[in-house]
Amino acid sequence: MLVALKKNLAETEKQDVIAKIENMGFLVHLIEGTNKLVLGGNKNTGSFDPRKIKVIDGVLDVHKITTPYTLAGKEYREDNTVIKIDDVTIGGKQLSIMAGPCSVESEEQIFRIAKIVAENGVKILRGGAFKPRSSPYSFQGLGEQGLKYLRAAADEYGLKVITEILQNQHIEMVYKYTDIFQVGARNMQNFALLKDLSTTNKPVMIKRGISATVEELLMSAEYILAGGNPNVILCERGIRTFEKYTKHTFDLSSIPVIKDKTHLPVIADPSHAAAIRRYVPPMALAAVASGSDGLMLEIHDEPEKALSDGPQALLPNQFGELLNSAKEIAMVVGRSL
Amino acid sequence: MLVALKKNLAETEKQDVIAKIENMGFLVHLIEGTNKLVLGGNKNTGSFDPRKIKVIDGVLDVHKITTPYTLAGKEYREDNTVIKIDDVTIGGKQLSIMAGPCSVESEEQIFRIAKIVAENGVKILRGGAFKPRSSPYSFQGLGEQGLKYLRAAADEYGLKVITEILQNQHIEMVYKYTDIFQVGARNMQNFALLKDLSTTNKPVMIKRGISATVEELLMSAEYILAGGNPNVILCERGIRTFEKYTKHTFDLSSIPVIKDKTHLPVIADPSHAAAIRRYVPPMALAAVASGSDGLMLEIHDEPEKALSDGPQALLPNQFGELLNSAKEIAMVVGRSL
Amino acid sequence: MLVALKKNLAETEKQDVIAKIENMGFLVHLIEGTNKLVLGGNKNTGSFDPRKIKVIDGVLDVHKITTPYTLAGKEYREDNTVIKIDDVTIGGKQLSIMAGPCSVESEEQIFRIAKIVAENGVKILRGGAFKPRSSPYSFQGLGEQGLKYLRAAADEYGLKVITEILQNQHIEMVYKYTDIFQVGARNMQNFALLKDLSTTNKPVMIKRGISATVEELLMSAEYILAGGNPNVILCERGIRTFEKYTKHTFDLSSIPVIKDKTHLPVIADPSHAAAIRRYVPPMALAAVASGSDGLMLEIHDEPEKALSDGPQALLPNQFGELLNSAKEIAMVVGRSL
Amino acid sequence: MLVALKKNLAETEKQDVIAKIENMGFLVHLIEGTNKLVLGGNKNTGSFDPRKIKVIDGVLDVHKITTPYTLAGKEYREDNTVIKIDDVTIGGKQLSIMAGPCSVESEEQIFRIAKIVAENGVKILRGGAFKPRSSPYSFQGLGEQGLKYLRAAADEYGLKVITEILQNQHIEMVYKYTDIFQVGARNMQNFALLKDLSTTNKPVMIKRGISATVEELLMSAEYILAGGNPNVILCERGIRTFEKYTKHTFDLSSIPVIKDKTHLPVIADPSHAAAIRRYVPPMALAAVASGSDGLMLEIHDEPEKALSDGPQALLPNQFGELLNSAKEIAMVVGRSL
Repeated sequence: MLVALKKNLAETEKQDVIAKIENMGFLVHLIEGTNKLVLGGNKNTGSFDPRKIKVIDGVLDVHKITTPYTLAGKEYREDNTVIKIDDVTIGGKQLSIMAGPCSVESEEQIFRIAKIVAENGVKILRGGAFKPRSSPYSFQGLGEQGLKYLRAAADEYGLKVITEILQNQHIEMVYKYTDIFQVGARNMQNFALLKDLSTTNKPVMIKRGISATVEELLMSAEYILAGGNPNVILCERGIRTFEKYTKHTFDLSSIPVIKDKTHLPVIADPSHAAAIRRYVPPMALAAVASGSDGLMLEIHDEPEKALSDGPQALLPNQFGELLNSAKEIAMVVGRSL
Repeated sequence: MLVALKKNLAETEKQDVIAKIENMGFLVHLIEGTNKLVLGGNKNTGSFDPRKIKVIDGVLDVHKITTPYTLAGKEYREDNTVIKIDDVTIGGKQLSIMAGPCSVESEEQIFRIAKIVAENGVKILRGGAFKPRSSPYSFQGLGEQGLKYLRAAADEYGLKVITEILQNQHIEMVYKYTDIFQVGARNMQNFALLKDLSTTNKPVMIKRGISATVEELLMSAEYILAGGNPNVILCERGIRTFEKYTKHTFDLSSIPVIKDKTHLPVIADPSHAAAIRRYVPPMALAAVASGSDGLMLEIHDEPEKALSDGPQALLPNQFGELLNSAKEIAMVVGRSL
Repeated sequence: MLVALKKNLAETEKQDVIAKIENMGFLVHLIEGTNKLVLGGNKNTGSFDPRKIKVIDGVLDVHKITTPYTLAGKEYREDNTVIKIDDVTIGGKQLSIMAGPCSVESEEQIFRIAKIVAENGVKILRGGAFKPRSSPYSFQGLGEQGLKYLRAAADEYGLKVITEILQNQHIEMVYKYTDIFQVGARNMQNFALLKDLSTTNKPVMIKRGISATVEELLMSAEYILAGGNPNVILCERGIRTFEKYTKHTFDLSSIPVIKDKTHLPVIADPSHAAAIRRYVPPMALAAVASGSDGLMLEIHDEPEKALSDGPQALLPNQFGELLNSAKEIAMVVGRSL
Repeated sequence: MLVALKKNLAETEKQDVIAKIENMGFLVHLIEGTNKLVLGGNKNTGSFDPRKIKVIDGVLDVHKITTPYTLAGKEYREDNTVIKIDDVTIGGKQLSIMAGPCSVESEEQIFRIAKIVAENGVKILRGGAFKPRSSPYSFQGLGEQGLKYLRAAADEYGLKVITEILQNQHIEMVYKYTDIFQVGARNMQNFALLKDLSTTNKPVMIKRGISATVEELLMSAEYILAGGNPNVILCERGIRTFEKYTKHTFDLSSIPVIKDKTHLPVIADPSHAAAIRRYVPPMALAAVASGSDGLMLEIHDEPEKALSDGPQALLPNQFGELLNSAKEIAMVVGRSL
């Protein structure tokens, strides 16, 4: 931490400030010829609240210079984390595609769509059984019955499953059916949920909150890592901005930044950001070009009948065409699909 | 809902669009001499996804015109909701003050501060026992032991208690100690938690999420109301903006808006927005002037030793002075304290 | 500036980084026992781009610790700037009220409203003759003719004038009619305009841009001050956020922050933030309670006929009542009106 | 426009509201069986302020349903605008690359860089002679001398020129040296400047303001089009969000949206959004994949000596490699380079 003192502070006032800071457990270095202090020696600087120093009389400003996360950082681990679920890998040279409907709506629907997913060479099936909806009057998902259909459909077609977990009490139940836990954007800072997920042995994909910074996303990953679960996947799915023509602004600049700051894999979800079908393919291709480790895509064979988010679901033929183009772009940037 | 069609649509194309919309269960009125449709007759317009219509060929744009909340709105209930907990009321002419430390840190600490709260004529004691922290390495609260201290201190000084609830499994436990459940900003859209709280018989105060709109806050209130719990309190505590000199931007314009849109009481929490002690009093007075139904204030007698948020806690003497000024301003705007 | 180096850097690599930074004209202090450097001795740190250091191999992060403004800061001048225009002062104990219509629409209109302004004891008349409108098809103001009406009306009722200046070529013309130049939010970073205004001898009020930080507002003030014009007034008029029920979010937390950082006076304009008449009075009172040095208010005697922003204009009787309440609140916070 | 009335309005009250709205020049249709009105027949709905209706007693809400721009919209012109400057086209199948230094710093520098630009097959040279800087103490550009160097360097290597215009008085002077006027993000709503540019016969590229919506960008384009200049180019260069690891958030989702809404070409500028060299190439490739009509790129052969924005400038070899990859991606999405 670096502390700037006010100008024209008398020597005794300066010593006073230093004494107060030393009492907080810091080693204080006064930079000769300046009115600036560098603090060291406190083992908890990551979680220390710099305002404790800011309110001391004589202090002008305080600057934190340690990154608040440790285990998620490149300094902790240089080579990329590659997550393996049997023969499926996430974070390696090959891009990971996760596809399926927004919600599991019926046994027939998820079997039909799982078939399309598998026929396109995709290995991970997505589908929600518990849906967080802003209105209490909207469809809330099929619950455990939906999970059963999802697992059965995935097994029928040799797919892995990713599905959203909404609350701590459901962890044991969802664990039985899924291969990857998905934490939604609204729960990115539901620390109680993150803590309990940190003790399971299945991978967790955390979606970035709609107004969260990348640093905050990495802090949420740190919760999982600190609890002992090394298999964390990050997901960019769009942030809230003033733009009105898209539901969210797909922050693709976050992809190279995340690859620069952490060893964890990052997946891009263009469906939720664009929210309108025709904007999804260009955004998916852009995500691959930007260096994303994979894509999460919503598809539906009868989107006009979908119980949630039908308008953003790709049609089966669009999905196939998109994967072909994505494959070509992947090669341009040194990846495969 | 209002649907604008593209210009120069042939009559048969127009009829086609109308047929598709009617199939969704709507009554469609074509406004003569225009290319606009008004939809009615569907009982679920509140939760209907307008993009389902937006993706139909020939449709230019769709506008939703129903407010998505019902029970929280002024049209549902004209006179203000006044919540009573024994002799304490929230939402009436008299302002409600909720004060106390950020965290319960020890039995001594909460008893000392409860005494200060009571001596200043304040009737509701705040204090956190479960703390949501962005770093897994920060102090996370004393847990149930903290709740016991908080209840005991409140009882000793004749105070009511408000404290934060972080997860569904804790509801039963927290219920034993608190008078009001507080849902924090990060959990404003933790719908699983809101649903379970909607079935208790104790008031729930929901803090506005840091990037939430007032409409979304009212939708979260709707979750509680729809579940059968009429005693919801709203809380403005600052939103995230680009401004860097304050931790959050205290959105005081939301206060008259909330009073205009809903019958529910709204409390202002200037401590979290300002985040620096010296900015709290002017913001608290401004909140009273803007028409807030009360204030939530963090106070501490030894803020330099506080385990969380000490720099934003008011000192006991500042607290007393602030209440005096707030009382005078309350009178100017037709309230009392 | 503070530079954090990467961990495990060899001694020669460290010396390499230091040499590169010294070549940029800095004195480099290595903090013993750490991998951090403090830079000094460069006279242009305020305008130095820290990314020049960030891209050096071996550098982890760079932190700027100097405030970028000088003349606008409290360290440059401790006592508040009080601006005098004949017998009218801005920035002293007494609050300054600036009131009038959004646009000057006709000679009759501005004379009628100037009379109302004067009758309420207010000393500064506002009114726009050049209007920045987002649509080229909207009313763009009466131009110089409007300025003539405005000046005549002000003179008739013994008022001072504030009016907006849109472009450099108009400075000479507007100078003839106004007492205070107003730079609108959209032009806060029109540096060409600020530079030319810095050489006039009339006060300049700069409105904060809708997504500007307080620091950026102070940097724009610095442009005027650096050019030799000490009479700068700042104005908070609302910022863009995600909230939809208000046009802008009135950032009242900026008021105590601005009073803390600078000696310049700050005026609050609640009309543009609220944008709906009934939200203006509570916001105006809140602004006074928060420590604002004055208010800018839009009023109109026939708002339904106004050519711009009628719906946010206060009616004459509302205006009088508001001033009465504002006076009482001013007294509570140690000011007068 | 659509007007929702309050529930339970008496018939006479309803007629009252209708009469008031008719007095504003609208034809009012009451939708049978509802409390909603559709307004038509007023020729100025694009610039009509809906709040004028919102403040009428009995009105619940007002919804504007016309897009505010006309000439910029796809409904006005279906086929894309292709701008031709001699043999250079912008907006056709071939992508347009604009490259060069942030600032023109000296005759030697711009000649050296123009040579690199030309050697890479690029046809448009960028370079700033008037720089808008947030600090009055930063380098402000070489002025007209810089324009002379820029033009001479472009002519030497057979390139077209794009350069920024900061104020109305400079239009005539800049016109002499440039092929395309660039309006920077800070001036996107400098309507006085846009109006004067609308009467020149050279193309104008407008950069999106850092907190502007796409609709506002199109309204600024409308200013140029309405004044008679059909050659407008739009530019996405990043918007302000809460993310701190990048200077701005490059809003690539705006690209397919802009292509959907308007016939005007759109260029992506990844240098200003990323602001750090190593993030520029992935963002540039993503822009091509998203459907952008071209790229604006900052390059420098000695970025460590650059007077502005050196850290975001690509090195000559990076520039060449990037163009190669961009070419391959262009082909995947049906374009050429």
